[in-house]
Amino acid sequence: MKMVRNALGRMIPEEIDGKKLKPFMGAHEDHGGGRKAAPPIRAVVDYENKMLASLDEAIEACEIRDGMTVSFHHHLRNGDHVVNMVVDKLAEKGLKNLTLAPSALFPIHEPLVQHVENGVISHIEGSMNGPVGRACSLGKMSKTCILRSHGGRYRAIQDGDLHVDVAFIAAPAADSLGNCNGYGGPSACGVMGYALADSLYADKVVVLTDNLVPFPNYPWIIRGGNVDHIVQLEKLGDPEKIVSGTTRITRSPTRQLIAEYAARLVNDLGLMEEPEFSFQAGAGGISLAFLKYMGDMLREKGLKASFARGGSNKFLVDLLEEGLIEYILDGQCFDQVGVRSLGENPRHIETDPFTSYNYHTKGNFATRVKAAVLGATEIDVDFNVNVNTHSDGWLLHGIGGFADVCDAWCTIITAPLHRGRLATIVDSVTTVTVPGETIDVLVTERGIAVNPSRTDILERLRDTDLPLVPIEKLRKMAVDLSGEPEKPEYEERIVALIEYRDGTVIDTVRQLKV
Amino acid sequence: MKMVRNALGRMIPEEIDGKKLKPFMGAHEDHGGGRKAAPPIRAVVDYENKMLASLDEAIEACEIRDGMTVSFHHHLRNGDHVVNMVVDKLAEKGLKNLTLAPSALFPIHEPLVQHVENGVISHIEGSMNGPVGRACSLGKMSKTCILRSHGGRYRAIQDGDLHVDVAFIAAPAADSLGNCNGYGGPSACGVMGYALADSLYADKVVVLTDNLVPFPNYPWIIRGGNVDHIVQLEKLGDPEKIVSGTTRITRSPTRQLIAEYAARLVNDLGLMEEPEFSFQAGAGGISLAFLKYMGDMLREKGLKASFARGGSNKFLVDLLEEGLIEYILDGQCFDQVGVRSLGENPRHIETDPFTSYNYHTKGNFATRVKAAVLGATEIDVDFNVNVNTHSDGWLLHGIGGFADVCDAWCTIITAPLHRGRLATIVDSVTTVTVPGETIDVLVTERGIAVNPSRTDILERLRDTDLPLVPIEKLRKMAVDLSGEPEKPEYEERIVALIEYRDGTVIDTVRQLKV
Repeated sequence: MKMVRNALGRMIPEEIDGKKLKPFMGAHEDHGGGRKAAPPIRAVVDYENKMLASLDEAIEACEIRDGMTVSFHHHLRNGDHVVNMVVDKLAEKGLKNLTLAPSALFPIHEPLVQHVENGVISHIEGSMNGPVGRACSLGKMSKTCILRSHGGRYRAIQDGDLHVDVAFIAAPAADSLGNCNGYGGPSACGVMGYALADSLYADKVVVLTDNLVPFPNYPWIIRGGNVDHIVQLEKLGDPEKIVSGTTRITRSPTRQLIAEYAARLVNDLGLMEEPEFSFQAGAGGISLAFLKYMGDMLREKGLKASFARGGSNKFLVDLLEEGLIEYILDGQCFDQVGVRSLGENPRHIETDPFTSYNYHTKGNFATRVKAAVLGATEIDVDFNVNVNTHSDGWLLHGIGGFADVCDAWCTIITAPLHRGRLATIVDSVTTVTVPGETIDVLVTERGIAVNPSRTDILERLRDTDLPLVPIEKLRKMAVDLSGEPEKPEYEERIVALIEYRDGTVIDTVRQLKV
Repeated sequence: MKMVRNALGRMIPEEIDGKKLKPFMGAHEDHGGGRKAAPPIRAVVDYENKMLASLDEAIEACEIRDGMTVSFHHHLRNGDHVVNMVVDKLAEKGLKNLTLAPSALFPIHEPLVQHVENGVISHIEGSMNGPVGRACSLGKMSKTCILRSHGGRYRAIQDGDLHVDVAFIAAPAADSLGNCNGYGGPSACGVMGYALADSLYADKVVVLTDNLVPFPNYPWIIRGGNVDHIVQLEKLGDPEKIVSGTTRITRSPTRQLIAEYAARLVNDLGLMEEPEFSFQAGAGGISLAFLKYMGDMLREKGLKASFARGGSNKFLVDLLEEGLIEYILDGQCFDQVGVRSLGENPRHIETDPFTSYNYHTKGNFATRVKAAVLGATEIDVDFNVNVNTHSDGWLLHGIGGFADVCDAWCTIITAPLHRGRLATIVDSVTTVTVPGETIDVLVTERGIAVNPSRTDILERLRDTDLPLVPIEKLRKMAVDLSGEPEKPEYEERIVALIEYRDGTVIDTVRQLKV
């Protein structure tokens, strides 16, 4: 296998599974080119009745063959029954060598491992979390997996790099034309924008719903004009696990402190007073605490943020309802309050990876965010971030929107110096998910490191009383306490590619020696 | 020029302007095939600032060259200043041989005739109304014009038959990313869905606005991710003429009677009691009267229609607000009440020609409409309809959504026996816009003719006391009173093609001998 060095010095194969790879060139070196995928032209006259009696009939109608690519969205999260149900059915039909292209997988999808082992699934393009990632690390996939960010997945489908033969779209509400949304019904998940690319570009689109509603089902997040078949199922999943009943703020004093530092940082940067101030934070414990602090500061200053990007949750919705943010631009709903608000509040707006994250477009929302707060598994002294593998080499997480969110004006990584007994700040990350050039600040409980390339940020922080320190010093603090993490031992074989949002390969993941 | 006979017996050239033509085969004989157009791939990094200082700068940035295609939407209707302004500017730059692809033109666009005469515009693909159509009839265009329905225009752009180099999109509200809608501002026009195809498939998209609003401008009917450049103009048009202050119901007793017959017809068909009853009518005098009758009947019966398709106007909005219809699915706003309601009422929903009318899709809204009421210039004894030319051969009207709406379960043509001194019902229409097989009923003041192929409709009307008569009898009544209209005299040259919604050619229009 011939290898080339990419812009970060990581070695990338020239080609893999017969496909030529483009090595990462820098975060914004790609300027597009070529043309988008061209989906097949169909005629209305052939879609007078889309309702099919069963999943079996839909699979027959789609003429799925060995080696095809089937896709799924992950808005039903750890409550999803659809992926397992469909893949079981495909296995039953004797299909082999399928590419699975889910926008993410969760622990509930552990049964897929057996379908990897028996050859039904050759590999995964999209995202893996937990057990399926573990199987990948063990070299169980017959082909090389490709991990993509949410924006990267949209781009890959849009550009034709990832051709989906059949998309299975779980729809909490659908009408008989195939207009879908996630607002109501027993499996309500709120946002369902991650299925948009699939609906636009897949050759065949099958909607699975447990809630068939009268036409017109509005909003039509998935448009009926893109849907081939509709099947009613008894249930799509487990409502309790589709969205959690509650999201919990961190109680750890260390993490509270990190959140407070991050919020004070945003304040000291003077961003809040600027027009069109906006922010984004996830649904982890630190992020939720950050949201709370942001709310306190906005309230105190009598200011209003122009928008916040979700993952929506109770804390973000509280800010919206109190009038401290003008809009929530939501990419997925993390709890029931988020789902409820999306359906009710006209200022809580559903987005999708085209509007939000896609790099191959004429502008998106990610670049409009002023301050984004993200967690990380590892960060190194060049500010490169790893969210995919642990220091022991196991591939356990997808990229999510991480690489896309980093286009914010100020991207802030919040991380304690250690997780368990392992240092979070290292000399060189096990796997590069995003390049250091897109990371602006690291906030830890022991100090805040600003990327030295961001002289403008350093200038704005001239008078701050926050504890600014060089990242090397944070690394030393971390390592002095815990020692350098042991390097994992790898086999030769590359089991996964980490694809950057522009379609280049930023790093590889190797099979673990176990 | 080699000619072939299409399914309606009309003679169609095998090719024109070097392009091979497909003769019309029947309303639902086309089953798609091939792949959609593939727009160029761009990168976010090149769209950090889309604002340009002037229309000149935008034209420079788009690198418009002789022979290119530029497009416009018509939601500003007869109040639009944008088309004239842009084409004047293109003429100033010395450009020649441009294809103009507006979704419609109005009398205000008469100045375009001079740009046809001086060679700036070679021809028009889309729609012509009034003076520009007249110029076409006189043979002033150097190439052959193509008339398309709203759905047909979306299809042609989507399928790559009509490649737009640069789309100029007039936006009553836009933010700095290019998210647009028509809801507010001095040039508010309400719906702006006719610009959707242009935004998705044109190589370059220029947004022109007189109302730059903060990000995010929601709803984003045109998505910023599809927009290249934004220019602020002092004004887009004349608000008085963009949407009329009032729409007026007919006062003619003849037309009142026709409207009443049409409404009673819908009643006697038993459609109103069926689930998911829906209807569509335009904004002409008869159509508005029909809406009023529909309201009266729904109120009396205690029924509610599932939806009505707009062209929205005061009468339709009244029905929505009274609760007699569940939703308005709106394709364009005809008056200020329509615009206001669209912005305020969550059950007044904006649609576009993809969801509504496109034939090359996996289902659309047109087939969901139970009863559609449409006017016509001529209808013949085979139920073929002409809405483009007058009996004297002048091309004066676009197709609008006509050919698309005819997919309703029951398509009803309302027409008085005569217009002026000319019979409306003829032996053979001057120009076929839509084939008789898609027309179900003709309602006149002297009787109602059902298309004999619709035996199901005839069966449902077995007990009606409406005056059912064969269409031949209506023709005789009309001709007995006024005589056969004189046949126009034509030159040899074909000046325009009437393209059916599936991309085949249903008829041609010849240059007039004057």
